[in-house]
Amino acid sequence: MAKFTHHLQALTDILGKDRVLKAPVDTFGYSYDGSPEPLSQAFQPDAVCKCHSTEEVSQVMAYCHRHNIPVTCRGIGSGRSGGAIPVSGGVVLSLDEMNAILEIDRANLMATVQAGVRTKTLADACKAEGLFYPPDPSSYAYSTIGGNIAENAGGICAVKYGGTAAYVMALEVVLADGRVIRVGGKMVKNVTGYNLVGLFIGSEGTLGIITQATLRLIAAPACKGTAQACFSSMQAACETVSDALAKGVVPAAAEVMDAVSIQAAERFLDFSAPDNTEALVLFDVDGDDPEAISRQLEALQSLAEAHDAVRLLTTTDPDEAAALWQVRRKLSSAVAALAPDKVGEDISVPRSKLAEVVETLNDIAQRHDLLLAVYGHAGDGNLHPAFLLDLADPAQKARLDKALDETFRAAVACGGTLSGEHGIGISKKPWIQTALSEDVINTSLTLKQALDPKGILNPGKIF
Amino acid sequence: MAKFTHHLQALTDILGKDRVLKAPVDTFGYSYDGSPEPLSQAFQPDAVCKCHSTEEVSQVMAYCHRHNIPVTCRGIGSGRSGGAIPVSGGVVLSLDEMNAILEIDRANLMATVQAGVRTKTLADACKAEGLFYPPDPSSYAYSTIGGNIAENAGGICAVKYGGTAAYVMALEVVLADGRVIRVGGKMVKNVTGYNLVGLFIGSEGTLGIITQATLRLIAAPACKGTAQACFSSMQAACETVSDALAKGVVPAAAEVMDAVSIQAAERFLDFSAPDNTEALVLFDVDGDDPEAISRQLEALQSLAEAHDAVRLLTTTDPDEAAALWQVRRKLSSAVAALAPDKVGEDISVPRSKLAEVVETLNDIAQRHDLLLAVYGHAGDGNLHPAFLLDLADPAQKARLDKALDETFRAAVACGGTLSGEHGIGISKKPWIQTALSEDVINTSLTLKQALDPKGILNPGKIF
Repeated sequence: MAKFTHHLQALTDILGKDRVLKAPVDTFGYSYDGSPEPLSQAFQPDAVCKCHSTEEVSQVMAYCHRHNIPVTCRGIGSGRSGGAIPVSGGVVLSLDEMNAILEIDRANLMATVQAGVRTKTLADACKAEGLFYPPDPSSYAYSTIGGNIAENAGGICAVKYGGTAAYVMALEVVLADGRVIRVGGKMVKNVTGYNLVGLFIGSEGTLGIITQATLRLIAAPACKGTAQACFSSMQAACETVSDALAKGVVPAAAEVMDAVSIQAAERFLDFSAPDNTEALVLFDVDGDDPEAISRQLEALQSLAEAHDAVRLLTTTDPDEAAALWQVRRKLSSAVAALAPDKVGEDISVPRSKLAEVVETLNDIAQRHDLLLAVYGHAGDGNLHPAFLLDLADPAQKARLDKALDETFRAAVACGGTLSGEHGIGISKKPWIQTALSEDVINTSLTLKQALDPKGILNPGKIF
Repeated sequence: MAKFTHHLQALTDILGKDRVLKAPVDTFGYSYDGSPEPLSQAFQPDAVCKCHSTEEVSQVMAYCHRHNIPVTCRGIGSGRSGGAIPVSGGVVLSLDEMNAILEIDRANLMATVQAGVRTKTLADACKAEGLFYPPDPSSYAYSTIGGNIAENAGGICAVKYGGTAAYVMALEVVLADGRVIRVGGKMVKNVTGYNLVGLFIGSEGTLGIITQATLRLIAAPACKGTAQACFSSMQAACETVSDALAKGVVPAAAEVMDAVSIQAAERFLDFSAPDNTEALVLFDVDGDDPEAISRQLEALQSLAEAHDAVRLLTTTDPDEAAALWQVRRKLSSAVAALAPDKVGEDISVPRSKLAEVVETLNDIAQRHDLLLAVYGHAGDGNLHPAFLLDLADPAQKARLDKALDETFRAAVACGGTLSGEHGIGISKKPWIQTALSEDVINTSLTLKQALDPKGILNPGKIF
């Protein structure tokens, strides 16, 4: 710690006194993130460096590299896998004040932003220009673009529009030793050299610090329709979604909720489902043409009927749509109200395995005597199982540990993986060998070693 | 050579006599690819190894790794940048007989194929099931999926559907030392560990040998419309394309041709354009709904009129569409007929710079007294300038060298790059430092060194 005092002075020389936080009361807020407690503990950094420019990030990295100081990059800390938690101490490099939208380029349909821009801030700025930045992680009101890219954040509309990765055209990245590289560009097609843009996306701050990004935009769809379908089985719900995609009806959202989720909604929200509803799917369809929207809703209706939907509500009225959606938008809180604690997870499986996996998850919950609600992005096969319990009870906590272990193994066993949109961070690191072969892990570590030979970038994460 | 005789025996032990070619008459066909001669010379390999399984590829790689033998992977050799040319001799590892479609998974809308499957073979098999594999490089009738992935091949419909990279969900890759890794999977969303799938895409056989791929499919669109628009300026043509995209009219093709291309079509094809036509754009729109197609064609019509189109032809009749398209489909041969030799290139620029770059290219051609035709994928900003000359004339050849150099520099100067869909290989390697900074190149070489420390995978390419 005496040693770090010396570093603090050097970092202050770069950033000024106000932007190097060292008092525990100031650094405490940078010791945790949005991940569920049981899988990720808090760790205090030795210092928080609040950077305002790429040049400052470069100088901080060069200094930390020279002195082997761990650096954990952080946006707003809304991550769900502990990616921004400084498990080895050292410096938290905070980019949330690098939050300028540098350009909205209408001619090329691209925006260039600093890493700390909030996703919603960008989305709103685009909307004001009639443009659309689709990625919408549920944290999008406060999460940052840099964090979205570092974790390849998904969201509800990924089924039609893809996740964050599908929008990143160019990145400015500060390497472990402080060098700054710019990769990609405003050309839509680019096969000049290795896909470094793709390598940094989803690398969780372990290969470089993303300071700036150029993102593809699209024209905002002019109209929208919504359908809420109740089914008597999860199988029927999932098959309706798959059949829609196979027929070319690609919804802008296809969110599924299981029976416990529906019960939570009935209890805490203004919602009621027909008897024997076991699963609910919320669809959005969007486009430029009201008639095409109607036809898509009709197509969803016949598919839902073919799967014996017990109720189908459709609308093209925005207020009615909002009313249909509130069951999903407020679901997380409603589900959380079922028990003192909610441990929400994130697994991703082949779409064809969705119903089977939900059944397996219910079996796991039952065997470990835990309440479980399952909901998520059915169009992507990306589920959020939420275990509901009292973490203060060690017995329940022990049962949860086993249930989570079995949950992740079940996802992998059916050809899926540990995370669809939250990342691995520290919370899923114990299962990485379940998901990836030894040779894949070694190949990954070889790349990590190549780009960060001193291992200072977000140490202790992923592998 | 005496030394290689020993290797031939070992390789024959792995593959059998018939699948190790060594006679120059047999290996000659593996000494060149589809790239234009002036930028890529032919090199004979010491041996051609025709593999039939991943296990065989693994054994060949393990042997070559042990003995430091260069290995250049090859599909059908249709590449346009010399990527499959064995510039250092050694082994050409031919995968064109690993051509099985292993699975078309309707439930997940995915196909799994061996690397040697022809793109059209896959596309046809999907079509037979009502499914659609969109990537359509102009070589798609004979190019292989492995080659498409290694070069991240584009195509005409990339403007709406994306290039090859947008469809690759999982890869089986044989590493330099013979280890086999499987990365990605059938889950649509996957943020477990580094994006190794993305790193191997477009790496031109320099980081690993792609032996198998799982590719995303979509529902085949039910109907199509075509518009052919003639403009009195390239600027008007390009702005029409940009405006369409900005308004959410995303065409399945937006191919542009300049005045010289149009003259070639008028001379050698059954085509004539109105006087003062300086540019032509061919649009396809597709979808599931005939009325939506009509509305998209109407939208294109009003945009074209707003840009003073001198002629607009639209149709939803397949035969009429084919007639409108023949001017583009046969364009390459028509342009080639203008001179003894045609050197077709591939540059990619921000869409907003298209017209400006065409002007610069014409200026370059004029200054170097060369005939130039420019056509390409306007929706992507991906142009194929074709210089037309007699390469047997050293003076013309010398002027071409200068013109090409200026062409690539012009692409980079306006924020574009050396290649949109052909790759760098050997033909554009001399310009890599024009396009990428020293730190980007060094970062890339660091990754290459990490994955192929002995440098045996396709040596002499890209960097």
